[in-house]
Amino acid sequence: MHERVEIRLSGSGGQGLILAGIILAEAAILDGKNAVQSQSYGPEARGGASRAEVIISNINIDYPKVSNPDVLLALTEEAMLKYKYDLQQKGLLIIDSGIEKPEDSYKILQVPILETAKNQVGKIIVANILALGVLTMATGIVSKESIEKAVLERVPKRTKELNKKALYEGFKLGKTQ
Amino acid sequence: MHERVEIRLSGSGGQGLILAGIILAEAAILDGKNAVQSQSYGPEARGGASRAEVIISNINIDYPKVSNPDVLLALTEEAMLKYKYDLQQKGLLIIDSGIEKPEDSYKILQVPILETAKNQVGKIIVANILALGVLTMATGIVSKESIEKAVLERVPKRTKELNKKALYEGFKLGKTQ
Repeated sequence: MHERVEIRLSGSGGQGLILAGIILAEAAILDGKNAVQSQSYGPEARGGASRAEVIISNINIDYPKVSNPDVLLALTEEAMLKYKYDLQQKGLLIIDSGIEKPEDSYKILQVPILETAKNQVGKIIVANILALGVLTMATGIVSKESIEKAVLERVPKRTKELNKKALYEGFKLGKTQ
Repeated sequence: MHERVEIRLSGSGGQGLILAGIILAEAAILDGKNAVQSQSYGPEARGGASRAEVIISNINIDYPKVSNPDVLLALTEEAMLKYKYDLQQKGLLIIDSGIEKPEDSYKILQVPILETAKNQVGKIIVANILALGVLTMATGIVSKESIEKAVLERVPKRTKELNKKALYEGFKLGKTQ
């Protein structure tokens, strides 16, 4: 089966979404797939919301631009409002619990990403990795083994344990839905 | 004038070229331009050589894929041999002094990036930032002010001075040619 999945990760600058995108792409490679990870910056990117995009496919990726995301993750309401415009009608919207749920027809998964990172893991800075855990469990786009390996290869040595804990909390949140 | 510049940064995995690409794109934004930064991973990316690509333009970037780089930076010979195939005939090839100079017709700038990072700056890990300094001076694609600001915004706090020193050594190397 030829499968191409487009994922957009969004939030505010400083939430580590570019790193999350890179890790997701690297997990896909570990799964034996192809991936393109990109950030576009333009006049529209000068606001507070930022995004990173990943395309994962089991064949060559000829057109590397995200056109209609299958999955949109939003950690802030501003980012959700800005970036949900072209989410597929049958797409999946993953949003933080602090965001007002939109009245749209896509499948919406709302979980306490920021709160869990802050209170259960102890550092809100790992919300990006926790979100990857949620996304992995909710979509199956990459395997748990590969996302864990990719996370541990990318984060600084002294933060490995913290990030692993965040990822596992994300697995739990993604699973209970 | 409408200008689109395609830059490919290459070397071995672990040399920080994705981060360099992100910083270069962010410097372009500080200069008021548009930018797309991407990594493609596929079967060919499973070897030792890796690359990151940046497109900088003063108008919208509709086609976000690098087709014929204007500039190729290579920190290793393997990366140069792998990624110079589609460099423009009038393009610029920036290579480390440890690489055997190819017999090609493009303009070649060969400077001791790795050696200077190791011996003058004291840490080979900052070779990526030093290389950005060389590239900035040699091409003028981004301003010195913006690349410095972008570097300092992206690197960990405790490494700011080291990275600044690396960038300035790169400016010097890029200038003397």
